[in-house]
Parts: sequence; structure tokens; C-alpha cells
Amino acid sequence: MRVAVDAMGGDRAPAEIVKGVCAALETLSAEDTVVVFGDQAQVEPLMTGDWRGKVELVHCTQVVGFDEHPVEALRHKRDSSIMRMAWAASDGKVDAIISAGNTGAMVAACQMKMRALEGVNRPGIGVVLPTFHGPVTICDVGANVQCKPINLHQYAQMGSIYSRHVLGIERPRVGLLSIGEEDAKGNELVKQARQKLKADTNLNFLGNVEGRDVVRGAVDVITCEGFVGNVILKLTEGLAEGLMKTIAKEIADESPQLGQMFAPVVQKIWRKHDYNEYGGAPLLGVDGICIICHGSSNYRAIVNAIRVAREYARQDINGRIKQDLKAAVTQQ
Amino acid sequence: MRVAVDAMGGDRAPAEIVKGVCAALETLSAEDTVVVFGDQAQVEPLMTGDWRGKVELVHCTQVVGFDEHPVEALRHKRDSSIMRMAWAASDGKVDAIISAGNTGAMVAACQMKMRALEGVNRPGIGVVLPTFHGPVTICDVGANVQCKPINLHQYAQMGSIYSRHVLGIERPRVGLLSIGEEDAKGNELVKQARQKLKADTNLNFLGNVEGRDVVRGAVDVITCEGFVGNVILKLTEGLAEGLMKTIAKEIADESPQLGQMFAPVVQKIWRKHDYNEYGGAPLLGVDGICIICHGSSNYRAIVNAIRVAREYARQDINGRIKQDLKAAVTQQ
Repeated sequence: MRVAVDAMGGDRAPAEIVKGVCAALETLSAEDTVVVFGDQAQVEPLMTGDWRGKVELVHCTQVVGFDEHPVEALRHKRDSSIMRMAWAASDGKVDAIISAGNTGAMVAACQMKMRALEGVNRPGIGVVLPTFHGPVTICDVGANVQCKPINLHQYAQMGSIYSRHVLGIERPRVGLLSIGEEDAKGNELVKQARQKLKADTNLNFLGNVEGRDVVRGAVDVITCEGFVGNVILKLTEGLAEGLMKTIAKEIADESPQLGQMFAPVVQKIWRKHDYNEYGGAPLLGVDGICIICHGSSNYRAIVNAIRVAREYARQDINGRIKQDLKAAVTQQ
Repeated sequence: MRVAVDAMGGDRAPAEIVKGVCAALETLSAEDTVVVFGDQAQVEPLMTGDWRGKVELVHCTQVVGFDEHPVEALRHKRDSSIMRMAWAASDGKVDAIISAGNTGAMVAACQMKMRALEGVNRPGIGVVLPTFHGPVTICDVGANVQCKPINLHQYAQMGSIYSRHVLGIERPRVGLLSIGEEDAKGNELVKQARQKLKADTNLNFLGNVEGRDVVRGAVDVITCEGFVGNVILKLTEGLAEGLMKTIAKEIADESPQLGQMFAPVVQKIWRKHDYNEYGGAPLLGVDGICIICHGSSNYRAIVNAIRVAREYARQDINGRIKQDLKAAVTQQ
């Protein structure tokens, strides 16, 4: 398959992105190619190893910045790496696209150039959050900030398929994010979505989950509106980072010697819960494969994103989504 | 003043609640009284010290459980401690009410029996979240799960007043919770609220904040819809607890000796960020003083809640809210 990677997106682009592409080459099959989109003058000197024949470079003159308004940026930057990748995907020239750049722009580009999968109302970003009890797939975390009940139902379905076939969780337990466990708790959206989720016997729906359950291993998949999903994702990162720093500081204040002993423990925990290991978040429900990486992705995140894209294709996630959504419609 | 305390609400009720009441007595002025609502047969034997003359017991035969539907429970449990307290407040028999019981029932009881302050559209719970950079007041965290822009504006106003006059933060910086810093980010509610907040020159409004900013000391007050505010509150608790446990385990696995050395550090961090120190969350905007405590409050939380209720009265928070809201209306 042909996997496109945006060399220009992310805090550490292009160096870490290109490093990731080169490191991923040995994991590829003979029929795989990586297509790198970006400024050729910057990208080519960074390429290392025996890449010729396995990597194609596609020169783009523009980059969408992190702070740019997605739709505005895409309108004016037709030659940006993100826009060019989405275009290539819609033309069937590449099979998957990967970027650590402006998330909003990636989502907008996919929605402009690639269609939603048959039966899907709106795509959602399914992020895999590392927790103390294993990975939790949360969908949506920012593609759709104003959901309808059908969206939350479909995010549960798509999140389950992903959790099962990419993360290998046999019968993923699904939770609906709310502010209490009871039927009566939550807003109108949640109450209506709950009825749909309960009625879908193909899902292993456990009921509502609260904020505290997100990291407690209560469920494997959480469906929620993109607004609150995005807040969860960023709060988790900010809190984990802040708490680690606080602990390290308190320990060092207590005794510098103890501080030194603590450093490797922090490293170990960090590695276990490192988002770089999960290789980015798929935009579930789009007719194609789109993997959105964290803005501060390092080369390992890119290696893993390429792995995830290949696994996504190999497991035919999109075929399964279409099938499951059709089954749910028939059932109702 | 007369402060009512619900002896029956909370995971550790009635023992810790009553212990808290008794511990608070020495902090009171001569004219202060605590009125304890609950089952007299359970409460009286728990009272210690020289409480007679300073504490009144009001016998109630019913308790609202944690899992009960708030409005249903109040309808059937007219003699529950929560309902009786709200009633007493609306009749002017007590000046403040405090409970660590069912939050939804407390909010519903206040809304049924006490009115909203003049000019306030809907009350909101203003919780003080301990962070690594000092306390952040978040309003609302669950009283109003479906907000209008005016609610978010008023939560910013009321949160600022509370932050300034109870927490002593001179000119509290206010943030609007969203999923990106730019004007264009967020849902319709946030975009409309942002216009109102920008137009209010009495507020020290800094703009949008994201999930990661909640614990980073970016602002002193965060205004948000009750649904996402509740998720933030519970996720923060779950994550802090989970991370502490993980670290403690990793360290003990590394070396039991190191684990022992780490224990006091954990205790120290815990104490610094302990919600029991903040004494509960006021229901801002209700015509009266209502302090909602955490379900697992210990006696110190009750001592602090009584302190907060007195400070709330002393600083005339409700008078200031009415004044500021009127000023904002005149200004527009």
C-alpha cells in the first residue's frame, strides 16, 4: 500500500517526521511505499539509509500553521502538504494519509476531499488514551463539536471496531460519557444517545461513565461529543505532566539523592503511558485512512502511525464499519 | 449567623460530619449557631465537647441517597435533611446550608425553595480546584448541563467575585473553556459567550482556555457548561488518584525501601491538593448561601465549609453579585 506522510506538520517537523519515515522502512513489506509530502529542499537532506525506491517525495510549497483557521488556511493554501495529501487520497493515488500538523485542517481537508463512508453521518477522531488499566479509545475528540444522538451511536460502533481489530480487545466494553450513571443524568443529547446505544445489541454497551471512569479501566471505548472529548484529552495530558513535575520537585526538595533515584521511575511510567506508542488517532468514518498524530510527535510516533495505517488497511476497518452500520440499521 | 449542616449526607455521614461540626465550634463567634439536620438518635450520641447552646439539632426522619433521582427523591422525601434545610433557608430560619450528600438534590432543593438572586438567570456550582499553581474556580460543574451564553457570562462574573473575595485573588483572570484559543474554535455556545465576555470590561477576561490550561495556572476562573465542568472535576480526581497509585507501585516494585521513602512525599502532595481544605463548592447565584461538599468529605471539609459559609456572608458575596450583574446590564 501507499502511505502518505506530511513532513511539514508537527512541532518537530520536518526532522523527527522524516526520521520516523526512514525508521519505518524496515517494517514495510515489499509492496509498500511511503509518499512524503513537503518542501523537498528541507526533506531530502534529512533522508537517511536505503530509502530510494521505497520513498517518494512530493514537493509542496506551503504549510498550514498550527494557529491557522483550518478552512481559511485550506482555501488559500492549495499547495499545502495537508491539502495535497487529501487530494491524493481522494484521487486514489495514496491509500492512507498521516499528519502531526493542524488537526482541524486535517479533518477539514478529509471532509472536503474524501467523503464519509456509506452510512456514516459524521466522521469522528478516535484517540487511544493510554491509562493505568490499558488503552481506552475515545471518539470523538474534536472533529464534531455539536453532535446528534446518531453521531454518538456511530462513534461507539466505530470505536468498538477499532478497539477490537486494531488494539485486539475481544469484546470492547462501551461507555457513554455523562455526569452520572443513571438514566436521568446528563443532557438531552446523552439521554437520547443512551436509548440508541441500549437498543443496539451488537454493542457491548455498559451504560454511562463519568469523568473519573475515563482512566479507571471501566470501559474500553468511550463515546462523547467532540467538545468534551477534546477537553478530556488535553486535560489528561496537562495533568499527567503537571503531576509528574510536582512529584519530581517535591522529591528533589526532600533530598537530591532521592530525586536522582526517582528519575528512572518517572521515565518508566512515561514510556508505559506514552502517546507516541499509539501512533496517532484515526479519523473514523471517512472513506479512506487518515491518521492524525499528536502535535509533539517524535519519530517513534510516526513509525507507529505508519504501522497503524497498515493495520487499519489489513483489518479492513472501513469495510467492517460499513457492514456494522448496515447491520444496525437493519436491526432497528 | 445560623449555619445549617446536613448530618446525613456523604460517604462518611453522620460520624465525620458531626465531628466536623464539633471541631468547628471553637472557630465560631458568640453570635454564631450551627443547626444540625438529621436523625437525632444517630446524631446526638456523636456530639462531643461543650456543644450545648452553640448547636441546635433538628430531627429529620428521611435521607436522600446518593443514587436517587434528585427531583423524585425530594418530592417523596419532604422530611429529608436536604429538603428541610432548604425550607429553613427559604423561611429565613437559617442563613446558610451545607451538605456533602446528593449534589443534584441539593441543587434541586435550592432551586425549588430558594429563588435565584435578582438578575441571575441560572445558579451554577463554583468549585475550587486545587492545582499545582494555586486554586482555580470552575463554574459550573453540574447544576446547569444545558447553558445559554448568558449563563456562561454570569458564571464568569460570579466566579470572579468568589475568587476575589473568598480566595483573595486581587484581579482574577477569567478563561472560557473551549477546544482552542482562537475565536473560531469551539461550539456555538462558546462563540456567543465569548462575545459577551469580551464586551464586559469589568471582567479580566483573557480569552479561551483548553483542557491543558485547567491545571496550568493559566487563569484563576474558568467558565463552562455544567456537563463539561463536571467531567473535568471527576476526571481530575480520578487521574490524580490513579497516577499517585501507579507511581507508588512502580517505586515499590523498583525497591521496597524507596517505596517507604516515597510515602511521606505522596502525603505531602496530597495535603497540598486536598479538596477537603477548600471546604466545598458554593451554589453561586442562589438567593441564600448553599455550600455543596464532596461526597467523601472528612471532618476537616466540614470545618472548612462552615468557614467558607461565614466568609461568604461576611464578604456579602450575594450583594456583590447583584451589584456586578446590574452594572454589566447598565454597561451594555
